[in-house]
Amino acid sequence: MATKSLASWAVNLQPSSLPTSVKQAALRSLYNYIGCAIGGSDHPTVTKAYNALSPFFGKETSSLLGHKGSKKADAQHAALLNGIASHVHDYDDTHLATIIHPTGPVASALLAYGEYKGGFSGEDILCALTAGIEASCKIGLAVWPEHYDIGWHITSSTGSVGAAVAVGKLMHLSEEQMAQAIGVAAVQVVGLREMFGSDTKSFHPGRAAQSGLLAALLAEQGYTSSEKALEAKRGWANVVAGGGTPKLDQFVGELGKKWEIEANAFKPFPCGIVCHPAIDGCIQLHQEIQRKGLKFDDIKDVQAVVHPLVIELTSKRTPKDGLEGKFSVFHGGAVGLLYGKAGPAQYGDTVVTDSSVIAVRDKIDAQPDKNLKADETYLTINFEDGSKLEKRIDHAVGSLEVPMTDEQLTAKFVDQAGLVLGEADAKSASDAAWRVGESKNVAEVMRTL
Amino acid sequence: MATKSLASWAVNLQPSSLPTSVKQAALRSLYNYIGCAIGGSDHPTVTKAYNALSPFFGKETSSLLGHKGSKKADAQHAALLNGIASHVHDYDDTHLATIIHPTGPVASALLAYGEYKGGFSGEDILCALTAGIEASCKIGLAVWPEHYDIGWHITSSTGSVGAAVAVGKLMHLSEEQMAQAIGVAAVQVVGLREMFGSDTKSFHPGRAAQSGLLAALLAEQGYTSSEKALEAKRGWANVVAGGGTPKLDQFVGELGKKWEIEANAFKPFPCGIVCHPAIDGCIQLHQEIQRKGLKFDDIKDVQAVVHPLVIELTSKRTPKDGLEGKFSVFHGGAVGLLYGKAGPAQYGDTVVTDSSVIAVRDKIDAQPDKNLKADETYLTINFEDGSKLEKRIDHAVGSLEVPMTDEQLTAKFVDQAGLVLGEADAKSASDAAWRVGESKNVAEVMRTL
Repeated sequence: MATKSLASWAVNLQPSSLPTSVKQAALRSLYNYIGCAIGGSDHPTVTKAYNALSPFFGKETSSLLGHKGSKKADAQHAALLNGIASHVHDYDDTHLATIIHPTGPVASALLAYGEYKGGFSGEDILCALTAGIEASCKIGLAVWPEHYDIGWHITSSTGSVGAAVAVGKLMHLSEEQMAQAIGVAAVQVVGLREMFGSDTKSFHPGRAAQSGLLAALLAEQGYTSSEKALEAKRGWANVVAGGGTPKLDQFVGELGKKWEIEANAFKPFPCGIVCHPAIDGCIQLHQEIQRKGLKFDDIKDVQAVVHPLVIELTSKRTPKDGLEGKFSVFHGGAVGLLYGKAGPAQYGDTVVTDSSVIAVRDKIDAQPDKNLKADETYLTINFEDGSKLEKRIDHAVGSLEVPMTDEQLTAKFVDQAGLVLGEADAKSASDAAWRVGESKNVAEVMRTL
Repeated sequence: MATKSLASWAVNLQPSSLPTSVKQAALRSLYNYIGCAIGGSDHPTVTKAYNALSPFFGKETSSLLGHKGSKKADAQHAALLNGIASHVHDYDDTHLATIIHPTGPVASALLAYGEYKGGFSGEDILCALTAGIEASCKIGLAVWPEHYDIGWHITSSTGSVGAAVAVGKLMHLSEEQMAQAIGVAAVQVVGLREMFGSDTKSFHPGRAAQSGLLAALLAEQGYTSSEKALEAKRGWANVVAGGGTPKLDQFVGELGKKWEIEANAFKPFPCGIVCHPAIDGCIQLHQEIQRKGLKFDDIKDVQAVVHPLVIELTSKRTPKDGLEGKFSVFHGGAVGLLYGKAGPAQYGDTVVTDSSVIAVRDKIDAQPDKNLKADETYLTINFEDGSKLEKRIDHAVGSLEVPMTDEQLTAKFVDQAGLVLGEADAKSASDAAWRVGESKNVAEVMRTL
């Protein structure tokens, strides 16, 4: 019944019935997404994909974010390219219970279709976004953690269903059509963790967006799949469960009771979330070193005690470029210590290969401790003279306990969008993005971004 | 090393080094594919997809087979739509060792790209097709049977890699680029068996074709993935192995030594291959009944002893339409007995619901016997007067032991294409398709199909 239950819930969700906190979470998710998609829009990964695919563009109805409204594509390609851009800096949002980055696949499909079709209000968009994000996260929870452990990139492997639900909602699909759309999306399982560190990682959410959009388009024409697509013996959950026992009924049964979008966090640093506590701690230590007038050159070594996933996912000792730097807690810690900042600029290729950064990086050691929570860390700096500084992070900035404030989200948006648009246009874009919820026609807003 | 080995082998494969038997198998595979794609082109499943997607078509460079050259799409959509058409009657080819229908995903991508780019000879196309089919089947063998057992539609879950290899070969990708293309294809895992019996089943090879084409296009622009995409701990094979132990090295190591395309069989009947022995037997019994002047009305019951997969996959007792009829060994047996034929016309909706067909269908019983081979069956007809007829099928027509002859393939092509194009044009198309191998520019041939 999970497929039909999800379809029924999504079709019947009304903007007016969303709790204020959910609407707020949806707006923050969309806002953060837009900043990330603009910030990533001129990344070489996106450029390569654009060059490969622009010869195939259909009628150019949908904006590619970040090009001051000057670049468009057909809705399917816009979904793909904006999806890639939104994830390429590893700077997007995170549903912490599953490590899903939910907005990329869902919003990329939604905004591309919404602009193509036109006439949707900000309320429509935020409601559809919420439906899609709840869909992705609930089915993700149902197969977590074995699904991720075996090697699926859970953002995209759940994202096509989320995108289909969101677009299907904008289309006003019937419950039956929505179930068929979920089915067509469920057969397009995208994303392997083996690709982390390559261009293909950010292809994942883009392709999931495109797959979900395609599924909704087909279902709208009466294309059939299965009304048990998620729960059947040889349906999505059992096939991708990685040996675990899917808990679809449990989590789908919580739709509308427990809102996953409220548990969506925003990254303060453009890299894998697992190393955020260490970076946060290093930034705080940077401030302490400056306050106390200590010298970075006098650092003998830095000892970090971290959650084992930090080692598993981000232990590149000698990253060669910005992309590899994202998978190095050592680089993240080094720029945090040296610059007190770890934004997109600090993950530039030239920073990763800078000798002063490398000098600090090589002094950092990290040891796993399975008793730590994922957002917890202990740092010790030993100085040459035998003195030390210690820092304990119970919850990293950007966690649910220490969420990014709207002001911090704005600073993040303007910082990254400014690198692409210039600061003045980035600020205008930020203002427009905060006001999306009030818009009568989001297509018009999209054209200004 | 499997990914790099496959890439290297494919890049270095030369038309001149293909054994004659391989070239012949490639031509027969392509010929059969073209007939199936034409035959399926006006199916409602294809029409729904066309209607959903034509608003997004880019520059219309690539023919949609079966419309007398009058309908085109951009290469990506042509790959998708021709792929759907080629599989929609369940009438395509089968690599019997894996039940992969290999040509659909590979040829759909290849021909769409080939026509878009232009200038490729028949030899180029057949060589690239061979590379793609070998790729799909070898990686399929590596994860067979657990991959299929758990619920993946192995045709499409391996097909995106096959399609990427084939298109990549036409593009003259370097070995490194080919490995990257394989990686981008490998993250797009399409197709669940739960969809059998719905429109989405034939979406699978279409989407695999499109995914493989997309992967090659990205790799051509330098898009990176992983050179261990297939064999890494969290790469394709381990993630989709369904609990089995992948044997990539073994099967990839046999590339060019054992040719899977030579083990590609062609379906004499447009339905799941597992029920072909029973249909073959029923057709032979039809001829015997006619020869002996017996009456169909006098049949009391028909007992079939079949391989267990026949029961698992094709035991719909009361199919409601042509599509469900394909999953009913009882319907297939009934039309075989009554008409001595089981072509696309015998799987029309009106035939499946015809009362005289239903009367025979309801007399047929099938019992599994796990000691039978997959293409073996024993049939007994009991007549009202106590007499009986028996038929033992050791190998069904269309098996490797009793392959379809070129004449039978031609009859199949003209029969199904004739329903779409009319008989005269179907014969012209058949002639053109048999000559594809000699063509200097396949794009010109495509425009005539």
